[in-house]
Amino acid sequence: MSQDSNPFLTFIQINREELIIKWEEKMKNVDDQKVSNVISDQVYTNICNEYINILLQYFRKPDDEINSKISEFSQRVVQLGWSLRFISTSLQEMSKLLFELMTVENTDEEKMTLVWAFDKWIAPINSEVLYHYASSWERTVSLQKIAL
Amino acid sequence: MSQDSNPFLTFIQINREELIIKWEEKMKNVDDQKVSNVISDQVYTNICNEYINILLQYFRKPDDEINSKISEFSQRVVQLGWSLRFISTSLQEMSKLLFELMTVENTDEEKMTLVWAFDKWIAPINSEVLYHYASSWERTVSLQKIAL
Repeated sequence: MSQDSNPFLTFIQINREELIIKWEEKMKNVDDQKVSNVISDQVYTNICNEYINILLQYFRKPDDEINSKISEFSQRVVQLGWSLRFISTSLQEMSKLLFELMTVENTDEEKMTLVWAFDKWIAPINSEVLYHYASSWERTVSLQKIAL
Repeated sequence: MSQDSNPFLTFIQINREELIIKWEEKMKNVDDQKVSNVISDQVYTNICNEYINILLQYFRKPDDEINSKISEFSQRVVQLGWSLRFISTSLQEMSKLLFELMTVENTDEEKMTLVWAFDKWIAPINSEVLYHYASSWERTVSLQKIAL
């Protein structure tokens, strides 16, 4: 597939900084565990950047093995003590934010095209993050039990 | 809130049978674990009906405590041996199917309104199913380990 058929790649590259700043704000707002008190801003920035890198790599080479990157990312999220609910809500917030920023001047027809592009390009990555989270989490809990 | 502002309730009540038949077909197609060989059609029908009942109850009385119903549902899915991936993909398929059936004659403007209605009314239920699945699954695995 050519990069042209992916509507997100160039937009994210150009607007990466704005996207991450706004996403971090949203994450801190949805953070029901109040982990934000003990987690530094830098950690949020790192996690957001790592996720964006995964998306960009997937957009550029969708056939490449992306699973190991997602697995590392999910493992890091588990180790931070973030809940499945928190990471899932955060990814949903990121999608909504991206959609908002991309469709400021769009017609409903263009918006609907983008809705399907989200379904094709971003939803599968978000699902994979959650599946890998669930299996990483189980491994971590098992190891902790062994260590006790 | 009045029922009128929810676009799904009446549609699902009228088209319930068609929706469930088509959804079951889709579930059997995405069933990567080939559990369909050992699970009877009746089990699929029961699960689909239980999920639809949860949606309808939530649409009618969104303030009602829906969590215990979702928890029972997720527990049943875990006990059937269905993976997080399978139940998550199945719920996504159901949303797409419902959207397709509801928008056959719609304009893009009407479709976009419905996209946001999905985000408000159906996505939160699907997320809750996955969170409850994850915690049910952990409990089940722990009990199995104790039993060994």
